[in-house]
Amino acid sequence: MEKIRIIWVGRNISPWTEITREYSKRINRYIKIGEILIKPSNKRSAALRIEDESIKILSKLENNDTNCVLDREGETISTYTFYKWLFNQLEEKRRRTVFIIGSSDGIGEKVLAKADKILSLSKMVFSYQLSKTILYEQIYRSVCIRYGIDYHRE
Amino acid sequence: MEKIRIIWVGRNISPWTEITREYSKRINRYIKIGEILIKPSNKRSAALRIEDESIKILSKLENNDTNCVLDREGETISTYTFYKWLFNQLEEKRRRTVFIIGSSDGIGEKVLAKADKILSLSKMVFSYQLSKTILYEQIYRSVCIRYGIDYHRE
Repeated sequence: MEKIRIIWVGRNISPWTEITREYSKRINRYIKIGEILIKPSNKRSAALRIEDESIKILSKLENNDTNCVLDREGETISTYTFYKWLFNQLEEKRRRTVFIIGSSDGIGEKVLAKADKILSLSKMVFSYQLSKTILYEQIYRSVCIRYGIDYHRE
Repeated sequence: MEKIRIIWVGRNISPWTEITREYSKRINRYIKIGEILIKPSNKRSAALRIEDESIKILSKLENNDTNCVLDREGETISTYTFYKWLFNQLEEKRRRTVFIIGSSDGIGEKVLAKADKILSLSKMVFSYQLSKTILYEQIYRSVCIRYGIDYHRE
């Protein structure tokens, strides 16, 4: 059963998908990870698109999971703090951890209200493809710290 | 003539290279950008590798350029602040801007001493492939702000 899930709004675009697929493959050797892709809304305004996408995201959330929303206004943490937090959810609390990445329009208030953690990867604005890639790399890096694989250096 | 140059220590690995090449192509329509690749040192210790790579990096630096070193301990700035700073170098100061990305061993003190700016992309540790991709995306995003291309949203 999946222990980590990434719910994201966007489209699979090569060569980004090849990169995240490779990280997924490596992570899967240690922890089951999966993705749920939500197609971007085609409503006219950003507000309507966010509302539309929020409904779809909310329908995918389940009770007892830890929900972590990626948002630029969130908390910025180091890789090591991320690793400690992630494995605390997985191993101490025994909770599946769900990461949520919105579209370039942003993330809805109703989704933010369901967040156990709001995480910012950077003060900079990144495309969702880039955010997803960074997230996968940080999860893989955490797995490497946890299982003593030579990859991460402080 | 190149207005932006990226000096980086690493290896061209597909599919990362396809992504940065695509950004480079898009940026080049507006501003000339180029790369200098430095092969990672194969010395035994990290300290020796850093020293080796620093000598090679320093040999590529030229007077009158603005040197910006990427380092996790540097300044974290927003995309908009990055854009303002970059175009101030390029258009007001009329200086070529050189970005320097070290290997996973880190960046040498002698290179840091040549920096006009030390920039941190995040509090997290990223691979050099990921750092380079983020840098390209931020440069492209800045070009989009400058030339009114619909890509960046706050």
